[in-house]
Amino acid sequence: MSFIDLRSDTVTRPTDEMKKASYDAELGDDVYGEDPTVNKLEEKAAEILGKEAALFVTSGTQGNQIAVLTHCQPGNEILLEEEAHLFYYEGAAISAFAGVQPRTLRGNRGAMDPKMVESAIRGDDIHLPETGLICLENTHNRAGGAIVPLENMIDIFEVASKHSIPLHLDGARLFNAAVALNQPVTEFTKFTTTVQVCLSKGLGAPVGSILAGSKEFIHRARKWRKRLGGGLRQVGVIAAPGYIALTKMVDRLGEDHQNAKRLEIGLRNIPVFSIVNTVDTNIVLVDVQTLGITSAQFIEDIKKHGILAVPFGPTMVRFTTHYDVTTQQVDNAISTLASLYKR
Amino acid sequence: MSFIDLRSDTVTRPTDEMKKASYDAELGDDVYGEDPTVNKLEEKAAEILGKEAALFVTSGTQGNQIAVLTHCQPGNEILLEEEAHLFYYEGAAISAFAGVQPRTLRGNRGAMDPKMVESAIRGDDIHLPETGLICLENTHNRAGGAIVPLENMIDIFEVASKHSIPLHLDGARLFNAAVALNQPVTEFTKFTTTVQVCLSKGLGAPVGSILAGSKEFIHRARKWRKRLGGGLRQVGVIAAPGYIALTKMVDRLGEDHQNAKRLEIGLRNIPVFSIVNTVDTNIVLVDVQTLGITSAQFIEDIKKHGILAVPFGPTMVRFTTHYDVTTQQVDNAISTLASLYKR
Amino acid sequence: MSFIDLRSDTVTRPTDEMKKASYDAELGDDVYGEDPTVNKLEEKAAEILGKEAALFVTSGTQGNQIAVLTHCQPGNEILLEEEAHLFYYEGAAISAFAGVQPRTLRGNRGAMDPKMVESAIRGDDIHLPETGLICLENTHNRAGGAIVPLENMIDIFEVASKHSIPLHLDGARLFNAAVALNQPVTEFTKFTTTVQVCLSKGLGAPVGSILAGSKEFIHRARKWRKRLGGGLRQVGVIAAPGYIALTKMVDRLGEDHQNAKRLEIGLRNIPVFSIVNTVDTNIVLVDVQTLGITSAQFIEDIKKHGILAVPFGPTMVRFTTHYDVTTQQVDNAISTLASLYKR
Amino acid sequence: MSFIDLRSDTVTRPTDEMKKASYDAELGDDVYGEDPTVNKLEEKAAEILGKEAALFVTSGTQGNQIAVLTHCQPGNEILLEEEAHLFYYEGAAISAFAGVQPRTLRGNRGAMDPKMVESAIRGDDIHLPETGLICLENTHNRAGGAIVPLENMIDIFEVASKHSIPLHLDGARLFNAAVALNQPVTEFTKFTTTVQVCLSKGLGAPVGSILAGSKEFIHRARKWRKRLGGGLRQVGVIAAPGYIALTKMVDRLGEDHQNAKRLEIGLRNIPVFSIVNTVDTNIVLVDVQTLGITSAQFIEDIKKHGILAVPFGPTMVRFTTHYDVTTQQVDNAISTLASLYKR
Repeated sequence: MSFIDLRSDTVTRPTDEMKKASYDAELGDDVYGEDPTVNKLEEKAAEILGKEAALFVTSGTQGNQIAVLTHCQPGNEILLEEEAHLFYYEGAAISAFAGVQPRTLRGNRGAMDPKMVESAIRGDDIHLPETGLICLENTHNRAGGAIVPLENMIDIFEVASKHSIPLHLDGARLFNAAVALNQPVTEFTKFTTTVQVCLSKGLGAPVGSILAGSKEFIHRARKWRKRLGGGLRQVGVIAAPGYIALTKMVDRLGEDHQNAKRLEIGLRNIPVFSIVNTVDTNIVLVDVQTLGITSAQFIEDIKKHGILAVPFGPTMVRFTTHYDVTTQQVDNAISTLASLYKR
Repeated sequence: MSFIDLRSDTVTRPTDEMKKASYDAELGDDVYGEDPTVNKLEEKAAEILGKEAALFVTSGTQGNQIAVLTHCQPGNEILLEEEAHLFYYEGAAISAFAGVQPRTLRGNRGAMDPKMVESAIRGDDIHLPETGLICLENTHNRAGGAIVPLENMIDIFEVASKHSIPLHLDGARLFNAAVALNQPVTEFTKFTTTVQVCLSKGLGAPVGSILAGSKEFIHRARKWRKRLGGGLRQVGVIAAPGYIALTKMVDRLGEDHQNAKRLEIGLRNIPVFSIVNTVDTNIVLVDVQTLGITSAQFIEDIKKHGILAVPFGPTMVRFTTHYDVTTQQVDNAISTLASLYKR
Repeated sequence: MSFIDLRSDTVTRPTDEMKKASYDAELGDDVYGEDPTVNKLEEKAAEILGKEAALFVTSGTQGNQIAVLTHCQPGNEILLEEEAHLFYYEGAAISAFAGVQPRTLRGNRGAMDPKMVESAIRGDDIHLPETGLICLENTHNRAGGAIVPLENMIDIFEVASKHSIPLHLDGARLFNAAVALNQPVTEFTKFTTTVQVCLSKGLGAPVGSILAGSKEFIHRARKWRKRLGGGLRQVGVIAAPGYIALTKMVDRLGEDHQNAKRLEIGLRNIPVFSIVNTVDTNIVLVDVQTLGITSAQFIEDIKKHGILAVPFGPTMVRFTTHYDVTTQQVDNAISTLASLYKR
Repeated sequence: MSFIDLRSDTVTRPTDEMKKASYDAELGDDVYGEDPTVNKLEEKAAEILGKEAALFVTSGTQGNQIAVLTHCQPGNEILLEEEAHLFYYEGAAISAFAGVQPRTLRGNRGAMDPKMVESAIRGDDIHLPETGLICLENTHNRAGGAIVPLENMIDIFEVASKHSIPLHLDGARLFNAAVALNQPVTEFTKFTTTVQVCLSKGLGAPVGSILAGSKEFIHRARKWRKRLGGGLRQVGVIAAPGYIALTKMVDRLGEDHQNAKRLEIGLRNIPVFSIVNTVDTNIVLVDVQTLGITSAQFIEDIKKHGILAVPFGPTMVRFTTHYDVTTQQVDNAISTLASLYKR
């Protein structure tokens, strides 16, 4: 059976152009700084993100962890939204490796209230950890690909700056936000100290993310990457597809958003489904509670009919559109689901 | 000027009996297990708390940290109330030392909803940390000395047991709960895996806390205590007063509760004050927002009139009764505050 | 200028076959366990290494760090040779991430004395860390690619087993040892609990290493890899060349050894050079002290004449042969060095 | 049976004067900085040690751990002698808590070669940890109470200063060195960045040590002490005896040294004993190998005859003189051992 794979934008396979770029890439040993392909990618990424320097890392998790390790000291506290990927999906690595304590704030569609952020900053007492970092996530995965508004980012960046606390943006899907708002990505990154963006989600690269910031920051980050085992050799073989992803695949994200919207509208017509999120980008969250089954059972059921999704809570299911899902497939998914669940 | 010190029950000075016990204590080197006084205290404490074994530690923070270090692995998550002392006031040490990530739940007067606790348990996925420990705090300091109901403890202990997760009780002020409910302390501790109680707060010892649990747990805890620098030598000099605290000072906590109630009633008569908490034990929380000043300014002001309290939020103030505060002093404090703020 | 690059076997560029394999690789999302190419590589690697299971990791450092994280608890001590890569070249990551203390023993050509190992095992005292892991390295990089004798490995494995301590082998260049001794690699790995081998050194893959052990170990290791940011997506693009490396590039390591021997003999004819190591495999260590310059200056000087090497101490230089160095280039390097330094 | 306890100078019981001082001590809550007795002790200790500020801690281990936590970053390396207490006897806590890797150098009677120290400093490479701290121990416990010569300390301090690396002195028994050399203790401490001295060993206090350094350092150290659970309340009860120890018990250490010398001479007359160390201060190390028994068996045997000592290796035994051992007892111990082992 061939599947309509709506689980995640991470499942995209590299394009032929990416594979060819990998084949033809000029290579060297990046631990010596001699892989021209990754150097070119890092320069381009820094330019696009409006930062002095950038570092290729093997995953968004690795980019985020390096950011925390480089910004913070053990015994620090970091402020983030209570369902941020860094807190929710990274295996408590920020505490295991960097020794920092997350302090989570409940957001509104992924956006934290700047006033709450400011009042949560701590440090000037022997009992209290010092706030060492504020993290944002845009678009926000668990909020259903919600776009954190630019105004919100600006306000929180002002709070951070006022208190001399760095601000890291987990921009795994930042390009989705930029495309959806029709803004250059620098409109977002200029209100951050550092940013991580993924090449392997909507942009379609097989592997890799970018961490960007000041030269001094990236210099120190590089050593933490080595400790994590992320110092690779002829990394150009994956940097080359990453370069294509970054330079040629951004604009087409709009198609994924249209497909997600199309899916949302289709699912709204099936009364047993309750659409949980406002669909800003490429993610549709559906509550299947009225079916009287768990999300895991639901996912098992639709898999038998060729549709793949992921659980996102006891009765919540996430559908994600991406490069490897066509509009036709979205329509097919809607009809299949309608025939299964429309009564 | 002599002060009415309502800042904390930690400020109590040892009684003459405690000082005499210290003077007369039979001593030895506890690193060799040869201090008879601390051995006697640890045996007695284990008995009173209904656990196999107990360990003398130099502070509640040390007892809590050792519990986390002994129960958990790095990369674990621990569940606790969002203003629990372990999360709020221990300098992020759980993350810095044990490498665990706190996941905080909003409680009701310090009590977490057992259903929320259960649904927050995680682990069976490569992205997620394993929940390694559930922590309760009773009475709950930041909830104003609120008693976490026994039923709530039982329900959460059932959740913990069902998932084979240990439950640690931060019982820094557990004896206050037991006295207030007129229950033996074992009614609480039997619904815990391990418990920490302070000898140095309401019980009046100059220094020290007790961590109790199974023999095997305490054996491993002892080594973590050594690493933290809490392996002392002739520790009987502080264990002796601790023994008095544990065996003779518990029943009198009722006086502190009556004094706190008296203070609450007195302050309710001063309209500018808003009493924040239901006074279960020895803590009264007051919001001074209507005065148009911060808690810090308020505390500065009343200090000039001989009354000491601590800030507990931007406009919140904590008053705590204890062994070194008499009923007469409470009355004096009320009159002074009334003369200052009653209009 | 084209260089004869004798710095490291890490500088090898992938073969055309590897690049083609990457281009044609069947791909999937490995975080979901669905990349058939990496699955095939991991199965093959487990088979070759004689272990139940294997895990693809992005570097030798990552494989080693995961081994330590999975085997050990914080506060453990690990025993290793005083110039082992894990201690010497991994940025103190074992302490930063796993919280373990290295205890180093001076070896003889990289081989530790089994009696010294046994007498260094600790734990049964409150002052002492428990020995959680014994690490070997074979071939031993800083000992000049020296082969740790099989008998030595067997003796240390017996010590480890007797004390129920796991033994991890850093086999970044284990295939060099196996080829040089004309033994199957399982003759070594059967005396280990876990083993890490590099695909990216002599075997020529652009990126990657393998960590192998029991199924249960690899299951837990996979989660630590995720925390380190080593959970990749369409990882088949680098696993495919790794498969070629593992299955087709081992036997040819003998050529590198012959070239290293040839280089050694050539350099012995230049009296100012002092050969430091017995050349077992593909590494030649040369002391340039009699030249009255540092290794850094020497390396700068020969670079101007087209030869690349790395510093290995104040006056020590390492030359490494590999797939991208031909016998002709070795001869050219010898003549160039002779013309420069033979007086 | 009453024992002659030569196990450790940690077993001393407080003098009557100390106990009286504790009884009479003016107390307060030190977490608020209000215990006048500990404040007085910290000021006096800073003065005696020639540092800006000092901090009372509950043990030498705690003082050392706080020093490492305050000086270092995770991923740092610290240089120390291979049998230094910080490495040998503190349960790998430096790695578990501070995330630093020890790099140990073999010393000569506890003194490291300054040239070896300098050549072991690392950092300027992506593979290498940065050296964050150099630690000395004087007198050196495992070297048998050996005095590290002042010239050696000066040379290593120069190396440290040249490379801008802080130097911490584990001076658990520093006063023994000062008294033995008839030098003020500042002659040693002026060649250190920070120093820890124990009040509970030869100086006879029941509990406690002092960590001293710059004001800024002690400010940060105080927060680490809190995290370790070493922030105590009415700590004056143990600070008062500590003050007596520091101000009145130093000069009498000479008696312990004379007793140790007397013991050494006596044991030299028993041919089966081999004296291992040159007795500089209060420790005598004896090898009992010629008896054909282990140190553990030997210790068991002499205990039956009223003499206590500790094992210090498979066949090595440590005898330590201190305030609670009289010259008469030393003579008695010698006769008993002579009658048992002189043939």
